[in-house]
Amino acid sequence: MGAIPHTPGTIGQGETGGLCVLKGIDNRLNAEVLGVLRAMGHGDVLIVADTNFPADSVARATVTGKLLRMENLTAAEALNAILTVLPLDTFVDDFAGRMEVVGAPDEVPPVQAEVQAEIDRAEGKPRKMVGIERFAFYDMARASYAVIQTGERRFYGCFMVRKGVIPPEV
Amino acid sequence: MGAIPHTPGTIGQGETGGLCVLKGIDNRLNAEVLGVLRAMGHGDVLIVADTNFPADSVARATVTGKLLRMENLTAAEALNAILTVLPLDTFVDDFAGRMEVVGAPDEVPPVQAEVQAEIDRAEGKPRKMVGIERFAFYDMARASYAVIQTGERRFYGCFMVRKGVIPPEV
Repeated sequence: MGAIPHTPGTIGQGETGGLCVLKGIDNRLNAEVLGVLRAMGHGDVLIVADTNFPADSVARATVTGKLLRMENLTAAEALNAILTVLPLDTFVDDFAGRMEVVGAPDEVPPVQAEVQAEIDRAEGKPRKMVGIERFAFYDMARASYAVIQTGERRFYGCFMVRKGVIPPEV
Repeated sequence: MGAIPHTPGTIGQGETGGLCVLKGIDNRLNAEVLGVLRAMGHGDVLIVADTNFPADSVARATVTGKLLRMENLTAAEALNAILTVLPLDTFVDDFAGRMEVVGAPDEVPPVQAEVQAEIDRAEGKPRKMVGIERFAFYDMARASYAVIQTGERRFYGCFMVRKGVIPPEV
């Protein structure tokens, strides 16, 4: 149930090899994930799911229709890599969300606190994820752009992030 | 026959819109191109072809089997974007190549000089592309990883680049 014993950021340049990567892009973002992040548009939702989530069956209902994987990473490690390139939506409250613990919707277990820290880091300020009830989360996941399953084994390691925009550099 | 009237680098942030892009990644690299660049490994060859090249038929023989496009860009603009992320091979002489002018193999027309400048810029030093005879280029293209067709309309705007490696940051 514990986190996978890696320091966030080390896998990108180490364990999976430094070979075959791209300049300035985190190696943990594999080809399929990178293509999907690029293809997403403003407001599209990405699901980052734990190992217990019915990721394959849900993914088949999404826009891409095909499950993506970021294996052997915790939820926070996966989000750390994703947020190096993905801008978060600044227009809405549900720019990011976590699956609520059943019967304790306000509880934020460590797996969710770690991801909140990654979001705060990426945003450069504290910006709180919304809680999403379990079955509402499933509905949102089926309507999402794509599902990525991580190696996160802790319960409630399921998240959504909504893509934002990057303005032209004028 | 002239170059498409854009300054290299401006399209990425301007004309195609700044929306829906990724942090720190050139917007001219579309989802399919980005995924393929990431999926390539050391020594794999990428073909960047002009509009007259039989790109679709040749692409069907490649590893990916599917033509990619970087539309409305000159060859130099496309290579400028590609080389923001793709490392070039440092192990071999044919790390990059240009289709030789038939009957004048040593001639370097402006379309090829522009690309040479982009390679030199990316490498941080002059590093000369090899010339490849036209039919040898076709053979290499069919055996390549993927073909990208640009909007380059000038003759002999056909190039190959070979992916290099990025070492782990230890």
